[in-house]
Amino acid sequence: MAKMTVIYKTPKDIAAFEKHYFEVHVPLAKKLPGLIKYEINDGVIASTTGHTDTYRIANLYFDSMDAMRDAFRSEIGQQCAADRKILAPENEDVQIYLYDTKNV
Amino acid sequence: MAKMTVIYKTPKDIAAFEKHYFEVHVPLAKKLPGLIKYEINDGVIASTTGHTDTYRIANLYFDSMDAMRDAFRSEIGQQCAADRKILAPENEDVQIYLYDTKNV
Repeated sequence: MAKMTVIYKTPKDIAAFEKHYFEVHVPLAKKLPGLIKYEINDGVIASTTGHTDTYRIANLYFDSMDAMRDAFRSEIGQQCAADRKILAPENEDVQIYLYDTKNV
Repeated sequence: MAKMTVIYKTPKDIAAFEKHYFEVHVPLAKKLPGLIKYEINDGVIASTTGHTDTYRIANLYFDSMDAMRDAFRSEIGQQCAADRKILAPENEDVQIYLYDTKNV
């Protein structure tokens, strides 16, 4: 299973972020071809390393890295990337990681 | 489902990190009471936000936030926290997040 993990810092305008996230971004991302699951934090994010300025963590699951790459190369994927910049204009506002996973 | 997401920066001594991670840290953490799954990145982590100094992402799954808190309050949990500081001595070397999850 491959995964995209997205970590947003606390936005300046939380209400505007939430509105755009749930009304525009999530519905768009859920159209990504091959998306298996779109999971976000439910409630507070605690950090034991002092990274308390974190507002949202999202994990998007795909069958494989190839499937995930295909998704983000698609028209919907390009729209998602552009829309993410409305939510988090600067790369310092968000961390995005794409990786394959294995159990240990 | 609740989750701990752990994001390590690239260690100075990768070989030493890998040895300690797989020979000490993972076997210890797998004893955490209530741990359902211990998942790590398999291969390269790509970042579309320029966070390329990321070496390992681990996700540890528990039934609930309460179960996860109990795990980390346990003797094994305390040992894991201490052992993590051998892998990543400074809080700037690692981000640790604990959160409940929901699907959207």
